Formats: sequence, C-alpha cells, structure tokens
Amino acid sequence: MTKLHEIVDMSVMKAYTFHAVIVIIKMMLMSPLTGYLRMKNRAFANPEDAVAFGKGEAAQKYLRTDPYVERVRRLHRNDLENIIPYLFIAFFYSFTGVSETTALMHFRIFTAARLFHTIAYLLPLPQPSRGLGFGVGIAVTFSMIFQLMWNGLDLL
Amino acid sequence: MTKLHEIVDMSVMKAYTFHAVIVIIKMMLMSPLTGYLRMKNRAFANPEDAVAFGKGEAAQKYLRTDPYVERVRRLHRNDLENIIPYLFIAFFYSFTGVSETTALMHFRIFTAARLFHTIAYLLPLPQPSRGLGFGVGIAVTFSMIFQLMWNGLDLL
Amino acid sequence: MTKLHEIVDMSVMKAYTFHAVIVIIKMMLMSPLTGYLRMKNRAFANPEDAVAFGKGEAAQKYLRTDPYVERVRRLHRNDLENIIPYLFIAFFYSFTGVSETTALMHFRIFTAARLFHTIAYLLPLPQPSRGLGFGVGIAVTFSMIFQLMWNGLDLL
Repeated sequence: MTKLHEIVDMSVMKAYTFHAVIVIIKMMLMSPLTGYLRMKNRAFANPEDAVAFGKGEAAQKYLRTDPYVERVRRLHRNDLENIIPYLFIAFFYSFTGVSETTALMHFRIFTAARLFHTIAYLLPLPQPSRGLGFGVGIAVTFSMIFQLMWNGLDLL
Repeated sequence: MTKLHEIVDMSVMKAYTFHAVIVIIKMMLMSPLTGYLRMKNRAFANPEDAVAFGKGEAAQKYLRTDPYVERVRRLHRNDLENIIPYLFIAFFYSFTGVSETTALMHFRIFTAARLFHTIAYLLPLPQPSRGLGFGVGIAVTFSMIFQLMWNGLDLL
Repeated sequence: MTKLHEIVDMSVMKAYTFHAVIVIIKMMLMSPLTGYLRMKNRAFANPEDAVAFGKGEAAQKYLRTDPYVERVRRLHRNDLENIIPYLFIAFFYSFTGVSETTALMHFRIFTAARLFHTIAYLLPLPQPSRGLGFGVGIAVTFSMIFQLMWNGLDLL
C-alpha cells in the first residue's frame, strides 16, 4: 500500500498542519473570551442569556453592547476574514513543491503576525501596531498567491 | 494507476465528507432564512431591497433591524466561528490513522451538538441549552486538536 | 515515487485551485477596501484608529458608522457565508471523478456569479441584480452537493 508520505512532501504538510492548528486555536479562543466578557461586563445580545444575571428590568438593562466586547468581536471577525483565506492558500501552496525552509518562513511570519495583531487589538496598542500585524498577514498570504500563480498552479 | 483509497482510509474520509456536508448545508440554510425573515418582518439593511416593499417614506421605514433577524444573523456568525474551524481540524484529524469508530463518534457528536445549538438559538430554548450545544461542539474540536498534537501531527 | 497526478485528476484539481484563488483574492480585497473607506469617510470603529485623523473631540466624532462602509462590510460577510462553504464543497466535489468540463462549468459560473454579486452590491445595482448573483452562487454550490450525495460520496 502506498503511503501518503511517498506522494506529498510530509515535512511541508506537517509544517502547514502545525501552524494551521496554532492559528485555529488562537481564533477559536476569541469565542470563550467574548462569552467571559459578556458575563463580566453584563452585556448580552440574547434575552435568554441576560435573565441568568437579573430578573425583569435588570435583565432588560443587561441587553446592551459593551465597547470591549465589541472590540473582541471585531478582532474575531478580522480573524475569520484573514485566517480562513490563509488556511486555504497555504494548503494549496504546500503542494507546489516549495522547500520546507521557504514554507516554514511563510507559516511562521503569518502566525507571528496574527498573534501580534491579537495583542495589539486586545490591549490596545497605539496604531500602526495592529495595522502592521494585519498588513504582514495579508502580505504573506499574497506572497503565497503570487508563487501559486507564477508556477501556473503546477501542483506536485 | 494508484487509487486514492489505497493511500488514505476512505471509510474515515467518507465519514468526514458526509458530516462536513451536513453541517455546511445547515450553515448555508441560515442565508435564505435571514432573507425570508427580512422580507416577512420588513427589516432591510439595503435601500435597494426596501424599495421593493414600499416607496419613499415607506421604504425608508423598512430600513431597520428586527430582533429575530438579528438573532438568526448571530446564529449564522456563530456557525462561521465554530463550524469552519471544525472543518479544517476534522480534515487534518482524518489523516492521523484514527479508527473509523472514534472518528465517527467525534463527527456525530459535533453534528448533533450544532443541530441542537441551532434549535436552541431559533426557538429560543432557555439557557444553558444553547450554551450546551456550543460547548459540546468546542469540546469535540479540542478533543481532535489534542489527538493531533499528541501524536505529533503524525499524519498517515 | 508515486506522483499526486497519478492518483487524482489534476485537470480538475487545477481548475478548482485556480477558481478558488480567484474568489479568495476577491474576498480578501474587501479588507483593504473597508480600511480605505474608513479613512476616506472618517468612520472608525476603534479609538486608536480615529486619533490619527483628529485629536480629542475630533477623534471622538470620527468614531461612527458610515452607510457605505457598512455596505462593504455586509458584502464581505456575505462572501464569508457563501465563498467558504463553496471552497469546501468544490474541494470534495473535485474528488468525485467529475469530468473537467462539468467541473469547470460549476467553478466558472460560481466565480462569475460572485463577481457580479460584488459589483451589484458596491454600485449598487437595483434588485434583483444582487439577489441573482447570490442565488446563482447558492445554486451552483447545491448542484455540487446533490452530485456528492447522489453518488454516495463515492470519492475516487
């Protein structure tokens, strides 16, 4: 029986999978963070959530938006907009016959950029910190897109 | 010519694909549901949509948010935040050499949890119903992440 | 060493990858467009962004929503809701042994529909233009889902 590692470069695939898992965990953690902050700041979107923290008028009062909860939700949405396209592009890129060194460089810079973007968004750091994290992530993704295009999407 | 089933465990891949298709259909159905409710409740986000239901001031009046439309949109966004990470993690997980039984258990529990989460959000059911559906989905995804990590991302 | 093209139909995979990259680029471009319009229309979500364009009260004044910025954000979210499910379904579909002609027809119609949807949303064109782009995209995705289901998810 043929093994997968006889067909694809497993060092690149493992590097892809490892960094994909890291940024997916980072992105997923935004959900419990939002939930925790909604409870801590008493700022709910659903009446059935607010009633656990107060009855009648009190529950009504907790149906509100909180600036910091909204900040985390914007960060989470920015993750969806940037990390998910990266996951697809980096997957295609892993089949182009790229060297492990070049692939690792792309995956590491992207991962570091998105971790920095997260910190810059949460603290927040003054601009252009967040913009830098965001921009580097986009640049890495487009670098992979250019290389995919350049070799005519010639997969292994 | 080598066939794909000689390389990967097709029983796990088929189980993955089947459950992926189910949760993708479920997620996609939130779009027409939003559209239907926008028309039914006369609550539009775009002026070009509202004008079909009234002219001048009437159209202006229908540019509003409706609590139930917003509920469905929050559900849809929650699907994006949870189902898409799952689709990637479960795909990687299918290459770890996991047994069909263990894989099926993960895929079935996740799918059931997200269907229950959907019902709990739409009715709505009192909490912690929705929280349970959400939490079980996250737990299944992290169970797969731990197993990916545990065997050092050792794909087949 | 076995090559990937000995196992999967590379003409279909290349067609998939090419059209995936096109719609991913299209979707990703919504991010810088939002950023550009936020600066042009002075409509920011984060205080640390607004301070670059005014101090004190002026910065506060720029923390607002702009109808056109919100339009682009709705378009971007609609892309996430439609293009990402398509990317998964079309990937599975590429392994069903579908002919290159049939696969290309699906990928081209979806890509054209989403480009038209984008134009219709940005200008905006009167309805049902945007609805048509949206609906054709959904129809193509469900056509692939039906074919996946029909042959029992029988991958190559």
